[in-house]
Amino acid sequence: MTRLAILGSTGSIGRQTLDVVRSMPGRFDVVALAAGSNVTLLEEQAREFRPRLLYSGREADYLRERMQSGDIGGRWAEMEEMAAGDADLVVVATGGAAGLGPTLAAARAGKAIAIANKEVLVMAGHIVTREAKRHRAELRPLDSEHSAIWQCLWGESPAAVERIILTASGGPFRDTPVQELGRVTAEEALRHPNWQMGRKITVDSATLLNKGLECIEAHWLFGTPLAQIDVLIHRESIVHSLVEFCDGSIKAQLGAPDMRLPIQCALTYPERVRDTGVPRLDLKRIAGLTFSAPDPRQYPCLSLVLQAARMGGTYPAVLAAADEIAVQNFLAGHLRFTDIAHAISDCLNSHAGIAGPSLDEVLSADAWARAFAEDWVKAKA
Amino acid sequence: MTRLAILGSTGSIGRQTLDVVRSMPGRFDVVALAAGSNVTLLEEQAREFRPRLLYSGREADYLRERMQSGDIGGRWAEMEEMAAGDADLVVVATGGAAGLGPTLAAARAGKAIAIANKEVLVMAGHIVTREAKRHRAELRPLDSEHSAIWQCLWGESPAAVERIILTASGGPFRDTPVQELGRVTAEEALRHPNWQMGRKITVDSATLLNKGLECIEAHWLFGTPLAQIDVLIHRESIVHSLVEFCDGSIKAQLGAPDMRLPIQCALTYPERVRDTGVPRLDLKRIAGLTFSAPDPRQYPCLSLVLQAARMGGTYPAVLAAADEIAVQNFLAGHLRFTDIAHAISDCLNSHAGIAGPSLDEVLSADAWARAFAEDWVKAKA
Repeated sequence: MTRLAILGSTGSIGRQTLDVVRSMPGRFDVVALAAGSNVTLLEEQAREFRPRLLYSGREADYLRERMQSGDIGGRWAEMEEMAAGDADLVVVATGGAAGLGPTLAAARAGKAIAIANKEVLVMAGHIVTREAKRHRAELRPLDSEHSAIWQCLWGESPAAVERIILTASGGPFRDTPVQELGRVTAEEALRHPNWQMGRKITVDSATLLNKGLECIEAHWLFGTPLAQIDVLIHRESIVHSLVEFCDGSIKAQLGAPDMRLPIQCALTYPERVRDTGVPRLDLKRIAGLTFSAPDPRQYPCLSLVLQAARMGGTYPAVLAAADEIAVQNFLAGHLRFTDIAHAISDCLNSHAGIAGPSLDEVLSADAWARAFAEDWVKAKA
Repeated sequence: MTRLAILGSTGSIGRQTLDVVRSMPGRFDVVALAAGSNVTLLEEQAREFRPRLLYSGREADYLRERMQSGDIGGRWAEMEEMAAGDADLVVVATGGAAGLGPTLAAARAGKAIAIANKEVLVMAGHIVTREAKRHRAELRPLDSEHSAIWQCLWGESPAAVERIILTASGGPFRDTPVQELGRVTAEEALRHPNWQMGRKITVDSATLLNKGLECIEAHWLFGTPLAQIDVLIHRESIVHSLVEFCDGSIKAQLGAPDMRLPIQCALTYPERVRDTGVPRLDLKRIAGLTFSAPDPRQYPCLSLVLQAARMGGTYPAVLAAADEIAVQNFLAGHLRFTDIAHAISDCLNSHAGIAGPSLDEVLSADAWARAFAEDWVKAKA
């Protein structure tokens, strides 16, 4: 049995991770569960999986009481303790900066780490990968795109990689005229054509900012220089990403758009497991697969991420923080869709970056960017 | 330096193999060259690559004289001697049954064998793979489809393979109404939409018989049961084949339709080599990739091969031999395109198969089928 600590168990990835665990009875022992705010669902999960350690970001008192009364089992623990404890594999599916400390703790404890939290690598990829290497911790991707790249790299020499090509559906506004993007609503932005995901990441998919963050993630996960990472619009979300090798050969991974497949890959690696209920792809039923270059006018956020990535240091963290605030305010109706890029751009331009920052410097930059973005939104209103 | 013996050096694959050798100066030493009938080109190749051993199927006296007079270097040798000699890698690019003896000699000498000759595996896959296993000889594919599958399998467990999907362009008659197939000409059959190949294989691509033979090849090369090998029409010839794994994940290999890429892969394995002049694929310039199931009425030869494959024993050899005679006669204007399937079908129906045949029994069945098919053509005329 593989012992799992699942950080962020009530979010979209966390819930699907538990679906995968359910689909393979007897294979996994869930030893720790941590959630941000959905303590009701966490309680249900705790009753079902009986982890030894529990954590919630909100309503901690409620959860502690239930545990002390013996109503639900387990004991309270911080996520860092869960990550460094007796789990064999730590699933980091938290949102935002919350995953940073636990990921570093898991890396320093030499754990296998399945990572879905983009911000961890975007903010502190240089620190996480350095610590993982030092302590022989293994990073496994959970994103469908990075899982695709990972699978394409099995059995290949890293030196033979010429180019990583991340595919993007293009989101709900791929055919919306640029001059109309200022008028799209949050409701429209949340209608992703192919994937069911959380709200924030769905908006980030509509701006393609998410794809830019994935470029940064791919850079850290696979050690590929940013200049060798491309984005292609692929409307059908069937080819999850591709790798071009130095001889011109290209490998791609395809599958039904269902997150349980990449999650399962990360959980059972190096084994592939049969009949777990993940839907299969029937290529004969697919009308066609298309690819095109993203238009920078349609997706200014993509250019901004790549610019921040090239600048490096604290810039990617600043970009991610500014985006989080901007997207929150777009969803709340306080900003227009096109303001997301403007807020980020102004924030990047006002930031005095630090190269090779420490974790504290990254967190300060994050806090600075959040404050800047909040002010920007207020000034706009 | 890798020492290469190239059997069938003047054919399409042989010439492209030498192109690949030329593109990587200092990497290969061509120690043996063998050709069927094009002694003029063989002589040119001998002057350029200075192999120690030479063979030609025709005009042997001419070649021996040139060698004895010191006009060209090297000495005469049979292909079996070349295959078992001091080559590290034996490239089997001969046509028909001629490659059988040399391939077995190479297998018994424990060589790495890069194989483009379908008939070798179709006729005697059970013997070749048994001998290769016994003597730890390694079989590497040269076909673009099998190379694609091979690349997709690197780093994967054979037990995780659920399905192999061979792609087929569908040939020049994929849109020709079934009732008009009886009137198509040899000239039309030779206009393959995507690939430049020899005449016989181009006709076999138009009937999809070639794809059926590739299913048999894939079965022997990768140990996958025939029932788990599918064919998909993919008009663009960009996705060279795919592998579906037991978890539902599908890997594909893509590239420009240029045989030098799979040849290079087989020659430099496990290394991938950069900048050898093989054209690159630009996915942004591809309008779309399509997949569909082949229609059995459009491609009766595909059904015939799969039927022969399921019957096993001497049936695949009989099918391949009957096809060779039928295609020759179609190209010569003595048969209609649709007669190819009829000739093969009658030949299979008249054959008394032998299970698990010896090499001699395979060769007898081959001879019987050729005679049967010749008679069939005469009776038709």
